[in-house]
Amino acid sequence: MQGIYLDNQSAMLLDSRVLDFAKKYLIDEPGNPSALHSVGLAAKSAVEEARAKVAELINAEDARNIVFTGSATEANNLAIRGVAMRNAARGKSLLASRIEHISVLNAMKDLQKNGFQLQLIPVDTQGTVDLQALESMISRETAVTSVMYANGEIGTIEPIKEISRIVHEKGMLLHVDAVAAAGRIPIDVQNDGIDLLTLSSNDLCGPQGAGALYLGPNVKIQPVIVGGGQERGLRPGTENLFAIAGMGEAARLARLEMKDESLRLKAIRDGLIREILKIDETHLTGHAIERLPHHASFRFSRIEGESILLTLDAMFNIQVSTGSACSSRTLEPSHVLLAIGLKHEQAHGSMVITLGKSNHPDQIPVIADAVKKTVERLRALSPL
Amino acid sequence: MQGIYLDNQSAMLLDSRVLDFAKKYLIDEPGNPSALHSVGLAAKSAVEEARAKVAELINAEDARNIVFTGSATEANNLAIRGVAMRNAARGKSLLASRIEHISVLNAMKDLQKNGFQLQLIPVDTQGTVDLQALESMISRETAVTSVMYANGEIGTIEPIKEISRIVHEKGMLLHVDAVAAAGRIPIDVQNDGIDLLTLSSNDLCGPQGAGALYLGPNVKIQPVIVGGGQERGLRPGTENLFAIAGMGEAARLARLEMKDESLRLKAIRDGLIREILKIDETHLTGHAIERLPHHASFRFSRIEGESILLTLDAMFNIQVSTGSACSSRTLEPSHVLLAIGLKHEQAHGSMVITLGKSNHPDQIPVIADAVKKTVERLRALSPL
Repeated sequence: MQGIYLDNQSAMLLDSRVLDFAKKYLIDEPGNPSALHSVGLAAKSAVEEARAKVAELINAEDARNIVFTGSATEANNLAIRGVAMRNAARGKSLLASRIEHISVLNAMKDLQKNGFQLQLIPVDTQGTVDLQALESMISRETAVTSVMYANGEIGTIEPIKEISRIVHEKGMLLHVDAVAAAGRIPIDVQNDGIDLLTLSSNDLCGPQGAGALYLGPNVKIQPVIVGGGQERGLRPGTENLFAIAGMGEAARLARLEMKDESLRLKAIRDGLIREILKIDETHLTGHAIERLPHHASFRFSRIEGESILLTLDAMFNIQVSTGSACSSRTLEPSHVLLAIGLKHEQAHGSMVITLGKSNHPDQIPVIADAVKKTVERLRALSPL
Repeated sequence: MQGIYLDNQSAMLLDSRVLDFAKKYLIDEPGNPSALHSVGLAAKSAVEEARAKVAELINAEDARNIVFTGSATEANNLAIRGVAMRNAARGKSLLASRIEHISVLNAMKDLQKNGFQLQLIPVDTQGTVDLQALESMISRETAVTSVMYANGEIGTIEPIKEISRIVHEKGMLLHVDAVAAAGRIPIDVQNDGIDLLTLSSNDLCGPQGAGALYLGPNVKIQPVIVGGGQERGLRPGTENLFAIAGMGEAARLARLEMKDESLRLKAIRDGLIREILKIDETHLTGHAIERLPHHASFRFSRIEGESILLTLDAMFNIQVSTGSACSSRTLEPSHVLLAIGLKHEQAHGSMVITLGKSNHPDQIPVIADAVKKTVERLRALSPL
């Protein structure tokens, strides 16, 4: 892959050290952790080692609080539907911020078939959850409240500790989708007061094909996929040993290196924001300060984000995103951008940059120049 | 990994050619098939190439009939629960053979919460589905009938064409779990008359972490996991590019090489059966002729399968199984062995050998001798 890759949120380059660590599970030591012989026991111990590493990244009480899944989408489904269905007798209300990932929102919408009611918590123009609204909406009937640690489309970091305090004052459960935040900013499930937390392997520079759900000590859930006894019956199916071992190693490296790497990416990110905002009629989306260190998101008047993406790709070999890849093939404007108060036509002019290990400061002027030329070119062509 | 590995059904060694083919998606070209830029398009085209290869292995009408999942367990869940829930208005009866995999049986049991009734079709002492019983049990209310292509614990191949004829005479749908059979014996969904078919990547010597579901042209289902629009909304979550590309290549190699490789393994398998049956009070389980070419399964009187497994592993570095790894950590006797009429104490004395690429004929006397010594040693220690 040549060019400048700025879409690390859609797919992250696998850290070569993670590959070196985990490749033996592809080549020399494949195994089924449920098999009782020595090859199976070695596989089981690789899974348990990975579990401990993931637990350590988020300061979980115990490695047993981590359940591996096949993806973060599956972990979000397991969190929301698993908790809601298991505890349906206690209450059938669901709360989520308006800017949750589609896998959280759709899991909650799906529960409406089972008699649950869904309410969406508003956010302000920077994407921060409205705490007063949360306080007025939450009740003893709220089976689960879901607010993400940080939003992948606009980079805003949510005030999770305060949200947790409000949710816990009512004695209710908080689920946090930390896919965009983990490995970028410190997460401490105990100190933050998080009951369920979703993680993605690839977003930690680990292999695709693994996710994880943290379950607090007193959280009871039921599985979404049923089958054998893997992951204490909460996620049946033979474990993807390579992806899980890789996720563990990626979590270990993230814990050790996150601080320095995030500072490094933040400097590049700040340079990009400074330069790109010099373009006429260009606005930062999301929070100016409380935002992910590797994340810059913009909107440009009078042009389409998709045209920006395609032009940057074709003419400059620079890859960016317009929002969430999971929703990229629909023509609908992003629900996140509408939630922060943008009009439809404003929401269509978005561009998201997410930095990763392959990016460096020398790329700032190259990227800024390419974006400027792209925007000018498209505006010259635009009928608006 | 040293020793003689005879548990290919629990975890298959990845074909080195598959790794060579797919490793670029780990290192050079990771991507998100939903991203709209060139890196995303390359990823999408890798997924579509894999889809075509999997379709060709089973002679699907069109590559679009293949849905990739994260595992075969997930594909079984999607098949059973997806069809049943989507078509619930048409009927709420479910049929499965008594010897289905636990992910099929548990998916059906789970549907009982939604008002479905489950009936289990008996099998004979060789594990062949009782066609007369099927004919008497199926009705216009049968939302889905599930019979596996071949059983992983006893190797028996089911008469799928005749089963399909009976199911289709009633105008109903047939799901076939082909995890144990695919890549071992030819499967032709059109000629066999299969409406839904489950495949596993690893059982084709591909990477762990991918499965696939074939859906016939007129089969309507709904997703089990909800989220974004991946896999036409039937399996949301970012695609595991390496595993999917690897599964495709494994399917291609299986199509080209299955015939020769199955003949080669069958010769080893027949040698093992001949030698091992010389041991006193030893019986073949499953069908003597209609069985998977790489599969040999036995029961030994007066000893425990788990002790056989552990002794072969510790003393001879030979890895076998006692049945399904997915159920291996329970103390219950195998539901498959009970279904073919074995008593509890008979079912506990089982040993399953599944051959793979690393096995060769020179290993026959070594394995047979080790099994003989193990059985004699355990019987000498046995109080029975």
